[in-house]
Amino acid sequence: MSAVFRINELRDHLGDEVTVRAWVMTTRSSGKIGFVVLRDGTGYLQAVVLKKEVEPSLWESFKELTLETAVQVRGTARDDERAPGGVELTVTGIEVLATSPDFPITPKEHGTAFLFEHRHLWLRSRRQVAIMRVRHEVVSAIRDFLNEREFVLVDTPILTGAIGESAGTLFETEYFDLGSAYLAQTGQLYLEAAAAALGRVYCFGPTFRAEKSKTRRHLAEFWMVEPEAAWLDSDDNMRLQEDFVSYIVGRCLERRAEDLKELDRDTASLERVTPPFHRISYSDAITRLGELGKDIQWGQDLGADEEIALSDTYDRPVFVYNYPRAVRAFYMKQNPEDPRTVLNNDLLAPEGVGEIIGGSQREDDHDRLLERIRELYLPEEPYGWYLDLRKYGTFVHSGFGLGVERTVAWICGIPHIREAIAFPRMMTRLYP
Amino acid sequence: MSAVFRINELRDHLGDEVTVRAWVMTTRSSGKIGFVVLRDGTGYLQAVVLKKEVEPSLWESFKELTLETAVQVRGTARDDERAPGGVELTVTGIEVLATSPDFPITPKEHGTAFLFEHRHLWLRSRRQVAIMRVRHEVVSAIRDFLNEREFVLVDTPILTGAIGESAGTLFETEYFDLGSAYLAQTGQLYLEAAAAALGRVYCFGPTFRAEKSKTRRHLAEFWMVEPEAAWLDSDDNMRLQEDFVSYIVGRCLERRAEDLKELDRDTASLERVTPPFHRISYSDAITRLGELGKDIQWGQDLGADEEIALSDTYDRPVFVYNYPRAVRAFYMKQNPEDPRTVLNNDLLAPEGVGEIIGGSQREDDHDRLLERIRELYLPEEPYGWYLDLRKYGTFVHSGFGLGVERTVAWICGIPHIREAIAFPRMMTRLYP
Repeated sequence: MSAVFRINELRDHLGDEVTVRAWVMTTRSSGKIGFVVLRDGTGYLQAVVLKKEVEPSLWESFKELTLETAVQVRGTARDDERAPGGVELTVTGIEVLATSPDFPITPKEHGTAFLFEHRHLWLRSRRQVAIMRVRHEVVSAIRDFLNEREFVLVDTPILTGAIGESAGTLFETEYFDLGSAYLAQTGQLYLEAAAAALGRVYCFGPTFRAEKSKTRRHLAEFWMVEPEAAWLDSDDNMRLQEDFVSYIVGRCLERRAEDLKELDRDTASLERVTPPFHRISYSDAITRLGELGKDIQWGQDLGADEEIALSDTYDRPVFVYNYPRAVRAFYMKQNPEDPRTVLNNDLLAPEGVGEIIGGSQREDDHDRLLERIRELYLPEEPYGWYLDLRKYGTFVHSGFGLGVERTVAWICGIPHIREAIAFPRMMTRLYP
Repeated sequence: MSAVFRINELRDHLGDEVTVRAWVMTTRSSGKIGFVVLRDGTGYLQAVVLKKEVEPSLWESFKELTLETAVQVRGTARDDERAPGGVELTVTGIEVLATSPDFPITPKEHGTAFLFEHRHLWLRSRRQVAIMRVRHEVVSAIRDFLNEREFVLVDTPILTGAIGESAGTLFETEYFDLGSAYLAQTGQLYLEAAAAALGRVYCFGPTFRAEKSKTRRHLAEFWMVEPEAAWLDSDDNMRLQEDFVSYIVGRCLERRAEDLKELDRDTASLERVTPPFHRISYSDAITRLGELGKDIQWGQDLGADEEIALSDTYDRPVFVYNYPRAVRAFYMKQNPEDPRTVLNNDLLAPEGVGEIIGGSQREDDHDRLLERIRELYLPEEPYGWYLDLRKYGTFVHSGFGLGVERTVAWICGIPHIREAIAFPRMMTRLYP
């Protein structure tokens, strides 16, 4: 047997006899020449069977190939710039490894429900493969950016006691003899403890919201990266965020151009994602939204509509900073220049995407934090350890959380984040 | 103010006036000279205060420093190879940023329960910082190894329907109107679907076992990396594993030597971790264990005792392969040469560590897999999508799972895996 290669390796073996193991995507035939497009996860390959030049049995094998048949194909790799991937294979042998009768997903249109019900097979489509590759790049870029800046990964727990951002949207489970545990909505509080130990830290894992929400921007389970750094204030924090997001987008443009093309993504707006991003205070944003005809008053949180109306007026991501205290989490640092507000920011992506980051400087004053916990009637005891961080060498620190699926959906230019993860979990979907 | 640096940057600023923000670890004084050891997460720094040469107020500030006080210290960085990190700071200014009265963790001995109750503060100790840095390196090495070999990250769901390895040890939660969801014990089944789309894939996330186990090798929540590859058989799979583990250990030796020294780790046994690893079939292992005086019969699974007795006879990790079908999961491929067994392997680490990897070639025959599901009375319906993978272009594939905490504990030379994660979750611990 000739050496086995993956499709993306063939360009280095032009002229050689090679073997490829792959799945059949399409076949067509003129009666004299047969074409098979193959895929193996690394790329796409057109294989050509010339009826006159092969054994009749090989031609018969070719004619029996169906969508998603697993095959081992032997042939000569040839340079052909018209072919997908720039290589064409002149076939000298086809071995069917496994048949595939009646593959459910055909080139015709399918409904969304059908596709998600067959997500395990739908993942094989060109579009889904491209999205998964972009997601891989986003995650790699996130880690490379943070690792290069000496952030230390600290995996924070998923199973937690009664702490979180919004008690109404927690998944609950029985935890041995200790009562209930809740699936974490953030690792931030734990990271603050770790930042006092290691300086710069991040966690990166799945987070959970039992939110009865069916919007195109919500999942019950999604991935979030949360960097946290000692001695970083709110302003530094926004600078870190714009560098971070620019790096991630830049990496995808650089390394996943082919996949973005597969997705018909117009990359011009992504090319503009470079620091500095726009910045507007919450108060100015309210004024701006009024001018845009939105019915929103100072003190109200921005909803998806307002976020998108606002971000549509910018050519690149925009920070909205210093929100009213009442509409943000208890742990955010009160703004010394306007105590009605906190030192926080959201980052809104353009093109109708809206919020992809929420960040803030953290309240580092023990008494003010305790007061806030009491004002909100949060249970004090579970926050005992968190308050400890303000008793022993408390420190200025800030951090943020970036949602992976929203970022992937934005970069890929797909409207709904459910395609930005392999097996999305939504209110109405737990299968496959 | 002079420029602010992190401690590990000071070697590039010898002779300069610098500012450092850090926490106080220890102080001592001869009456004329004061020493403060500082930490900031990047390293340790000895700062020297010469009473004669500073303002009396500065000497007073020095005397009031307590464990974990947050300070901003100004001074001149000097080369001193006796000092930790090779740099010493001659102090010209100390600003106390935040006091730290009565820090609970003192240099004296504390009980284990006390330390875990104060895990959020204990993390600041030199030993725990070193372990976290090794963990970071293990995770980075895992991702680099797989990314370099073009494995695509596919994040698999945590919330799953009724599938898993052992139903008795699942955490359960209510999932909207769809009944119960279970926290995943593995992402493997999902990865097999993804491998058909992308060829080589991996997932890397937290996994959960509601196991009433108090051993030093078990956690209720732990991180696992699971690579899965199309066209890989059991033998290839073991080769991949030995390359993988050798790479991870090598990276830690290369980049975390200082942390391993902090942990008093004798690295000689780690230096021996290079391919090929030893291999012994399950059947031969049973014979060997008999010779070692262990009371175990063919057909029984190896317990921790047997694993350790066996791995102690080797100078590096050892594969035990082809276990009896009855003691391994339903999805493992039946061994065509001995149908009583499956094409699987465990990888046992030396030095009393035991299993760090479980891997197998997967059953790719639809009918045999269905038969196995029925033999074990598993519910068929939730596995419908999994069986689909064997209907449409089924393919030879294999994969494995490596437990992060066991690997970190082994490399660090710590006996209990609970210190190998920042906030361990055990039967009796959900706080902090």
